Amino acid sequence: MEDRIITLGQSEIPKRWYNVIPDLPEPMAPPIHPGTKQPLTPDDLAPIFPMGLIMQEASGEQWVEIPDEIRDVYRIWRPSPLVRATRLEEELGTPARIYYKNESVSPPGSHKPNTAVAQAYYNKAEGVERIVTETGAGQWGSALSFACNLFGIKCKVYMVKVSYEQKPYRKSLMHIWGSEVVPSPSMDTQSGRKILEQDPKCYGSLGIAISEAVEDAATHDDTKYSLGSVLNHVLLHQTVVGLEAKKQFKLAGDYPDVVAGCIGGGSNFSGLAFPFVHDKVVDGKGTDIVCVEPLACPTVTRGQFRYDFGDTAQLTPLLKMFTLGHSFVPPPVHAGGLRYHGMAPLVSHLNKLKVMRTVAYHQNEVFESALTFARTEGIVPAPETAHVVHFAVQKALECKENKEEQCILFNFSGHGYFDLAAYDSYLAGELEDYAYPKEAIEKALAELPPVD
Amino acid sequence: MEDRIITLGQSEIPKRWYNVIPDLPEPMAPPIHPGTKQPLTPDDLAPIFPMGLIMQEASGEQWVEIPDEIRDVYRIWRPSPLVRATRLEEELGTPARIYYKNESVSPPGSHKPNTAVAQAYYNKAEGVERIVTETGAGQWGSALSFACNLFGIKCKVYMVKVSYEQKPYRKSLMHIWGSEVVPSPSMDTQSGRKILEQDPKCYGSLGIAISEAVEDAATHDDTKYSLGSVLNHVLLHQTVVGLEAKKQFKLAGDYPDVVAGCIGGGSNFSGLAFPFVHDKVVDGKGTDIVCVEPLACPTVTRGQFRYDFGDTAQLTPLLKMFTLGHSFVPPPVHAGGLRYHGMAPLVSHLNKLKVMRTVAYHQNEVFESALTFARTEGIVPAPETAHVVHFAVQKALECKENKEEQCILFNFSGHGYFDLAAYDSYLAGELEDYAYPKEAIEKALAELPPVD
Repeated sequence: MEDRIITLGQSEIPKRWYNVIPDLPEPMAPPIHPGTKQPLTPDDLAPIFPMGLIMQEASGEQWVEIPDEIRDVYRIWRPSPLVRATRLEEELGTPARIYYKNESVSPPGSHKPNTAVAQAYYNKAEGVERIVTETGAGQWGSALSFACNLFGIKCKVYMVKVSYEQKPYRKSLMHIWGSEVVPSPSMDTQSGRKILEQDPKCYGSLGIAISEAVEDAATHDDTKYSLGSVLNHVLLHQTVVGLEAKKQFKLAGDYPDVVAGCIGGGSNFSGLAFPFVHDKVVDGKGTDIVCVEPLACPTVTRGQFRYDFGDTAQLTPLLKMFTLGHSFVPPPVHAGGLRYHGMAPLVSHLNKLKVMRTVAYHQNEVFESALTFARTEGIVPAPETAHVVHFAVQKALECKENKEEQCILFNFSGHGYFDLAAYDSYLAGELEDYAYPKEAIEKALAELPPVD
Repeated sequence: MEDRIITLGQSEIPKRWYNVIPDLPEPMAPPIHPGTKQPLTPDDLAPIFPMGLIMQEASGEQWVEIPDEIRDVYRIWRPSPLVRATRLEEELGTPARIYYKNESVSPPGSHKPNTAVAQAYYNKAEGVERIVTETGAGQWGSALSFACNLFGIKCKVYMVKVSYEQKPYRKSLMHIWGSEVVPSPSMDTQSGRKILEQDPKCYGSLGIAISEAVEDAATHDDTKYSLGSVLNHVLLHQTVVGLEAKKQFKLAGDYPDVVAGCIGGGSNFSGLAFPFVHDKVVDGKGTDIVCVEPLACPTVTRGQFRYDFGDTAQLTPLLKMFTLGHSFVPPPVHAGGLRYHGMAPLVSHLNKLKVMRTVAYHQNEVFESALTFARTEGIVPAPETAHVVHFAVQKALECKENKEEQCILFNFSGHGYFDLAAYDSYLAGELEDYAYPKEAIEKALAELPPVD
């Protein structure tokens, strides 16, 4: 019997993160200060981020050393396994080889601690006592709670209200790791109060929760803000995923033809994909690199590529990215982590340059594939992860039809143990299949200022 | 940095299970037919178990070959990691070395699939179409659902009512893997109806749920019964845990002075401990082998060693074991998997022979240690597992006081992702600390027939 699981020893945990920026075929547009309309300077970000992370955000170095204190925490669960999905392949009868990088093995259950731990470390190093953040499905909030607990930092999480109610146990996990959690929009910030005045029943969005957390950080001296995706330094920290995967493929004597991940802000996808983007852009590999998003929040496939705010209350810098408009509140799909109007500038830029492509799916087809996965490979995917599982299934079936022996790799970004209510709904035939919210998106895009 | 996680390649998955029976210092008392009062024959068990498992139950062979079909399924998650709990050691400031075998990495989240997969295989091999079982906390029910799904067998689970209500997501998991789940006592069996007539609000127990499942199997031709613990063949299947651990200790250049596990029916403990019992009994090692049970259900520390039924309705054979009396219904502690009046005859026998010993703890002290574990090692323990975590913490603190560099190994039998409501209660200071239920136990023991 051949090995299904390809493991690495702990000495193989990467010693450096990979920064894709120097390998970009064309430079990216810089973030813009919303007041001055000038490119952002490090000082502009100093009120909300520690300087260590600000310098990484702007770094042009291809390799960034990972401090030993961070690698020491990574040793709690890393390297994560690379798994050959032999049982899924058999079920589908495909000649394709399907691999997944299993990031669900971390204590919070997703890839998120890869950056949470790094961010907690750099904040701690500069004496920050308290970190605030937002969370959608709760994956990010629990990861940051886990990290802050290990470094002895206080943490407050603004949790999108629909998830706060759908996923009470994500909240429990944050409490176990010592964090304070409030549903967003909350009465604790001016941004939250303003929204609740207009719509007391508002079920929240990542854009709103970001506004609340950024405001909290900007108005408390001992406090910094932390973002779980979108920004360059976050994507940088996630590259441990792809760097390990490349070592594991070398051990397996294989290399992927297709690399895929689901995208909400873009970080789990980028973490896996960027080291393969390097091989494509620098070494000329023909890898098909694919982002997967929900049709209920189709940022890259239906949005505009332009400057927009990262949050609803217009507190963040302007980022050049694919956006559905910062006032767009996505339908309450169970994949809360994918309910974001914007997209990482790096992922947006690489999509624009056609180094990668994006596909969008409906909620119910995604759950159907997730169930097939759970019944063959055993693990129940998080609703976010279910999107890329569905892509892998579709791709493998395409290979079957075309008799192609392609090698498919995807990021199994998180497990669904906290999302079983969604599976209950699906199995009961009660899961809403949200259509593409065309009108709401057109309205939000129309509200943006004209592009210069 | 040294490795915290000691992994094995998949070719190291054991090829044989270890049977402790030939190594026992004295032979065990046989199971007795309740009607004839004679030792049980294989034919007596044939209505409810497949012959493959019945022969294992009575086997005197020291090594039992693991069929390739079972090892193939084990490859979904095995070998499980052996982890050096460096962060817990630091937190406690102990000179002890603490290791845990992490069985929570299986898709159902515990050690239970080690035997569920084997049982599903042997049933399938003899053409069984449907399997019924009971489950306490839901760990066993979800493991058997997982296994039955993989082998294409129908499965019905009688789930102890208090857990059915406390842990709805365990039920969801069983549904995902295609099982039918009912709360026990149920109206589906005569045993269940009888109990509900007497006490419509009965919150159930493992003893009651076993009666229901055994009755279901005995009254349906296409159906066999499956038990998740207690019996010799179940403990046999679990020995993959200890066999792997021994290989991993060899790699680490270490060997445990103390080996511990929590006991409900005894299977996770035995799986880890029996291969070390071999070294103690055959090779004269001085290992301290320790069972950990809840004071709310203190079977070994407060029960009688005698013949009793395995279930409430007196449908099972009589087993010589520690028992609190088959009519005893334990308080609804969150460690549902430890709420059993009896104990595996093998574990009982080895306790009686003083090859091992047993300690009992209160619910709240157990949760305190579980929280320490979650905040240092990251993983949240299941309430059952929390018992052995508490023992390890106590032992490590004892080593600190005595300046002893002992090596402690325990079985991290399952994670607590489905038990977070219990942690919510603990953190809110609302967790009941159930006293030793002395009177109820004395009453249940007094109801047993006198020992011949």
